[in-house]
Amino acid sequence: MITTEAALRAFTHNVFIAMGCSEQHAMLAADVLIKSDMRGIDSHGVARLSGYVRLWEKGRINTKPNITIVHQTPTTATVDGDAGLGLVVAPFAMQIAIDKAEQYGSGWVSVRNSNHFGISGYHALMAVEKDMIGFAMTNASPLVAPTFSNERMLGTNPMCYAFPAGKYPPVVVDMATSAAANGKLEIAQRAGKPVPEGWIQDENGNFTTNPHALKNGGSLLPLGSDRDHGSHKGFGLSATVDILSAVLSGANYGPWVPPFVSFLDPPDDPVGKGIGHFLGAMRVDGFRPVNEFKDHLDNWIDRFKSANAIDPDQPVVIPGEPELEAQAHRAVNGIPIVDAVVNDLNVLADRFGIRRLD
Amino acid sequence: MITTEAALRAFTHNVFIAMGCSEQHAMLAADVLIKSDMRGIDSHGVARLSGYVRLWEKGRINTKPNITIVHQTPTTATVDGDAGLGLVVAPFAMQIAIDKAEQYGSGWVSVRNSNHFGISGYHALMAVEKDMIGFAMTNASPLVAPTFSNERMLGTNPMCYAFPAGKYPPVVVDMATSAAANGKLEIAQRAGKPVPEGWIQDENGNFTTNPHALKNGGSLLPLGSDRDHGSHKGFGLSATVDILSAVLSGANYGPWVPPFVSFLDPPDDPVGKGIGHFLGAMRVDGFRPVNEFKDHLDNWIDRFKSANAIDPDQPVVIPGEPELEAQAHRAVNGIPIVDAVVNDLNVLADRFGIRRLD
Repeated sequence: MITTEAALRAFTHNVFIAMGCSEQHAMLAADVLIKSDMRGIDSHGVARLSGYVRLWEKGRINTKPNITIVHQTPTTATVDGDAGLGLVVAPFAMQIAIDKAEQYGSGWVSVRNSNHFGISGYHALMAVEKDMIGFAMTNASPLVAPTFSNERMLGTNPMCYAFPAGKYPPVVVDMATSAAANGKLEIAQRAGKPVPEGWIQDENGNFTTNPHALKNGGSLLPLGSDRDHGSHKGFGLSATVDILSAVLSGANYGPWVPPFVSFLDPPDDPVGKGIGHFLGAMRVDGFRPVNEFKDHLDNWIDRFKSANAIDPDQPVVIPGEPELEAQAHRAVNGIPIVDAVVNDLNVLADRFGIRRLD
Repeated sequence: MITTEAALRAFTHNVFIAMGCSEQHAMLAADVLIKSDMRGIDSHGVARLSGYVRLWEKGRINTKPNITIVHQTPTTATVDGDAGLGLVVAPFAMQIAIDKAEQYGSGWVSVRNSNHFGISGYHALMAVEKDMIGFAMTNASPLVAPTFSNERMLGTNPMCYAFPAGKYPPVVVDMATSAAANGKLEIAQRAGKPVPEGWIQDENGNFTTNPHALKNGGSLLPLGSDRDHGSHKGFGLSATVDILSAVLSGANYGPWVPPFVSFLDPPDDPVGKGIGHFLGAMRVDGFRPVNEFKDHLDNWIDRFKSANAIDPDQPVVIPGEPELEAQAHRAVNGIPIVDAVVNDLNVLADRFGIRRLD
């Protein structure tokens, strides 16, 4: 099915209202999911809506959270998300970071007691709109094994850095710290195709190309894939995300992170509350005038775009470019949604007595 | 040759004094290099001393710099290193970040007009000593090609995140954003051994195992090695380091970064001044009480150390552990220095009329 941004947004908004969200929270949560679909990151958009609903049904998501600052200095804060949707808690926390940056140059917020926050890029781009540099990261359900281990200890723990440019769109580095994101694996599973060696290992810690190995006790590999190719670096980045998001805030970390899927219960010996995020903003003009920075970032982009290409038909891709191309394309041509997701959404529609997506 | 920390420190100090450094700067610069050798990172210790001397002889390093803050807010600053040794400029900048963090919770400093700053870990650990989280990164001579390109556009651009623990030593993630650091390539070159596929490509952009390919127009590959394994992520991380260190401060970026080797001249169309660094500090107690954070980080370390090992003789390695083991070993057994470096250092001794290393 091809749908429009407006139709998908209205549908998603209605689901969040039906879950008991306030009008403001429903609009915000829908915006985070729809921006993900618009940016071509289908794995983090409405495809996840039924997952949020199931967690809410299990009592693991609170749709009327009292989100609070539990500790702060002029430029740092810890936020308790009260088990709210990460889609709502993370923008709340990012706004605090932005407000602090406006006053003092930078702001940093660690978040506990939250849930899945959608795409990191959404939150980091909130800062970019204010001519700030945005940072966003989150820990996630344990699927990734550290180097030398076959135990799932870490999430795909994404990190995002976003920078405002001038004539060009922002540079947005938004990446899982694993070799491959879980969404890519799911695509291979649906297609019944093998995955490249270096994405996953089986339960014994051997490389496998079987995309179903993850369900059979296997684990995802950190960025770098193996020790020779720097998987200890991917592990180190993932550890950094985990520590800033959870050890710093009082959320669960490592294998204690509650799983996103509702059919798996959270560990019964939690070391903190919910999952954790880390968000930050720095004013560009805290370092140099904004126009100078943007001129030089445009020059940086020009130079990298014109770097010698190995294949003349495949120039260097600036981080954030593919998502913007998807957005421009989908604004005109609509958003394609695979049948499985359409069915999933219409089950929700029937369940809540709201209008089906058609 | 096996030498002691004290002997190597005295020798290095004497060289910096002979170059015209103040007593304070010579002590600091020697400390950065010796800590690198003590931590087992031989590629960034005294092995680089003659490189610094040659840059100074070319007039590219100013041993009497007037390091200044050129722009600031309560928690951000841009520092001009006045072409000084990065070994001196970076600790100056990190001290500003720490002072700002003491007052406002966090501090962030972008540095222009600097030179090679040694190991990132040294600077990040300055913050850890104050119960802060330390961040340090720097751009560097272009050796790495972005994904889809065979042109050297980026340095091995390291990033470091350091966290204070309680009963355990700090967690220190200190990593080049390339698949392999240049130092590892040099070891393979000296040994005449092939390197794993995925570290370098030849001048046509094909994988090669020839460690000398870099000298023949080849380039290092970003962490991830190829597109299938996430090299666009390594490129994105390297870009982040370049932008925070240089586009933000007014240093040179991308292919304009002046080469570390003195026999290559800097580009004659600079886009900024010298090379750039980015340093940051955040107070742990800006988020939660220090003892709580340290207890949970100890628990994090315990859990990861006991993660199931694929090979029982090779448990999970906590980031920073190998460097600390090297330090403990070398404190007792001395620092091994390869003959080529000893010869190099004694040429310096003769050149400056100071006591040889023996």
